[in-house]
Amino acid sequence: MKIIKLKLKSKSYPIYIQQGSITKAGNLLARLKIGKDAVIITNSYLKRKFGIQIQNSLTRCGISSKFYTAPDSEKAKSIQYCLNLIDKISKYDNKKQIFLVALGGGVVGDLTGFIASIYKRGVPYIQIPTTLLAQVDSSIGGKTAIDLKVAKNLVGAFHQPKAVIVDPGLLKSLSERQLRSGLAEVIKYAIIKDKFLFNFLKNNYKKVFCLNKKAVELIEERCIAIKAQVVERDEQEKKGIRTILNFGHTIGHAIEAAAGYHKYSHGEAISIGMACATEISYNLKLIKENKLKQIINLIRLYKLPTQFKGIALNKIMNSLVRDKKFIQVRNKFVLPAAIGRVTIKNNIPEIIIRKTILRHLI
Amino acid sequence: MKIIKLKLKSKSYPIYIQQGSITKAGNLLARLKIGKDAVIITNSYLKRKFGIQIQNSLTRCGISSKFYTAPDSEKAKSIQYCLNLIDKISKYDNKKQIFLVALGGGVVGDLTGFIASIYKRGVPYIQIPTTLLAQVDSSIGGKTAIDLKVAKNLVGAFHQPKAVIVDPGLLKSLSERQLRSGLAEVIKYAIIKDKFLFNFLKNNYKKVFCLNKKAVELIEERCIAIKAQVVERDEQEKKGIRTILNFGHTIGHAIEAAAGYHKYSHGEAISIGMACATEISYNLKLIKENKLKQIINLIRLYKLPTQFKGIALNKIMNSLVRDKKFIQVRNKFVLPAAIGRVTIKNNIPEIIIRKTILRHLI
Repeated sequence: MKIIKLKLKSKSYPIYIQQGSITKAGNLLARLKIGKDAVIITNSYLKRKFGIQIQNSLTRCGISSKFYTAPDSEKAKSIQYCLNLIDKISKYDNKKQIFLVALGGGVVGDLTGFIASIYKRGVPYIQIPTTLLAQVDSSIGGKTAIDLKVAKNLVGAFHQPKAVIVDPGLLKSLSERQLRSGLAEVIKYAIIKDKFLFNFLKNNYKKVFCLNKKAVELIEERCIAIKAQVVERDEQEKKGIRTILNFGHTIGHAIEAAAGYHKYSHGEAISIGMACATEISYNLKLIKENKLKQIINLIRLYKLPTQFKGIALNKIMNSLVRDKKFIQVRNKFVLPAAIGRVTIKNNIPEIIIRKTILRHLI
Repeated sequence: MKIIKLKLKSKSYPIYIQQGSITKAGNLLARLKIGKDAVIITNSYLKRKFGIQIQNSLTRCGISSKFYTAPDSEKAKSIQYCLNLIDKISKYDNKKQIFLVALGGGVVGDLTGFIASIYKRGVPYIQIPTTLLAQVDSSIGGKTAIDLKVAKNLVGAFHQPKAVIVDPGLLKSLSERQLRSGLAEVIKYAIIKDKFLFNFLKNNYKKVFCLNKKAVELIEERCIAIKAQVVERDEQEKKGIRTILNFGHTIGHAIEAAAGYHKYSHGEAISIGMACATEISYNLKLIKENKLKQIINLIRLYKLPTQFKGIALNKIMNSLVRDKKFIQVRNKFVLPAAIGRVTIKNNIPEIIIRKTILRHLI
């Protein structure tokens, strides 16, 4: 089993990567001594599909398990749902040594991590991510959040899990669209930090798409290693290092917000965002034309969008200026400087952003 | 100015203690470089009484200030009020470098600290405690929380402030009952850790009660030094060290919960709790009769209750068994072993607890 250790002093934790690792969850968790009673937050589909395997593995190691199912959508991240769940957990948790388990994608991970951060001033939790996006990105690094009416992810916490169990075998349960959405984040890692991965993705489209075991493990290990290194150096996004992970997310988030989070998946929105950011970089003469083309071509190779329709430019610009990451700057962009290297620029003239977005609006 | 530094590596912070220190808030905070825009959470009485002084001091140092007033009761710690405030702050916080300021007692401190811990995954905050209880205890150590319907302080976080500004001059605004409530926590510190303070309290009742400057500063410095040392050694109450601060709180909290948080102030409830815990200690032969008497006498000297009425024993016992601090134990008590020294005991037979509480029920 491949183990990547995310080193954060007393908050360090292992990320286990192996086909079939969920059937070893009991052993892996018993070793960590984080509690005797697992509260597993998931959705009903995943509970049906993987619940028994995980439960059996935990039971064998003397860990009890209790499932709570969340809606399979951003609704699960509402404050109402969150409070409702805390209420249930507190009634179940009578003299138990509970820890939480997030079994799901980014939504379940964010919700579970946030509850773990505030329930009784913090309880341990572990991540068992089930989507590619969660396996390579959102399950690692301890960013948790829920949505308020006024904005998505407005409240949250940095609360590191005690372990992440990545089982690439779970990806078979994904729809093609979900898989592509995750591949958008993989492409992001390649562009910001990993030229080798970029070329691998370019040359192994078929293997990746049919979830060839070796190809998926290679991709996951490389992405997770990058994420772990970045988080180790800048856990709470205070030093500008973790910022590079937001490549494609500035315009991507604005498109998601303007479109109401339904029309485009997160991966699709950040694909458009990466295309726009790369073009901004080209306009600012930070990257050469042939690199711009290579990046656009890779996004398109994975059938991810670089253009969009049906959203007014002003709506996107309004969302963009309200981005909670902009403190004392008008805007902040992560821009590719080469394949595998990015630079951060603040206060890019609005006219450049507008023109770029317009060019990607069909 | 007396400065006690609470040492927690990157989370270390100064506690400033001086009569009139609120008028220096601007200088003290500008030095810390935590932001340019203070969001001050307080109640309308304190805003009227001290708001202008603090605002002027901040303005002189180039820090803007915005006040939000919270209800002057536990209501301010409801999730509704908390969300309402986050909503307002997020609308105000447009490209600002905000930090929060808790200007108030324990309720305002808990609420402000909790919002600071979750808003945008954590923003800096500082404490300007205005009650004796908050100055010697709740403002220090980073425990924050709000109440859910199912239980008080059920959700919260450990989120350390960036500074605590203790101005003993503010205590003149307290009612006698509020002052006595704070003195209950002072007596707690004396019993658990400070025989000198115990004797000082015994011999200087009048000075303490009329808020003699030197007496108050001595009391505050000693209590704060103890609190800081305990928090340094066990920030998140995981090693059983911070537990000693709960002396009197096990039965105290149960009485508060059973009485509905109106009848007895926190200090009154823990006074009864300290009396009960000391008697349990005596029953278990952990402390001698003359020490028991000394402790009871000191509590009574400060006109704090050691007995109560009008609450059913079963209601108290029901609250007690649900205490969220009891994990895999039936109960946990901090018991005096001498003046200035306590010991922790788990699973004390229920019959002893019941009998002791009954003896304190008039």
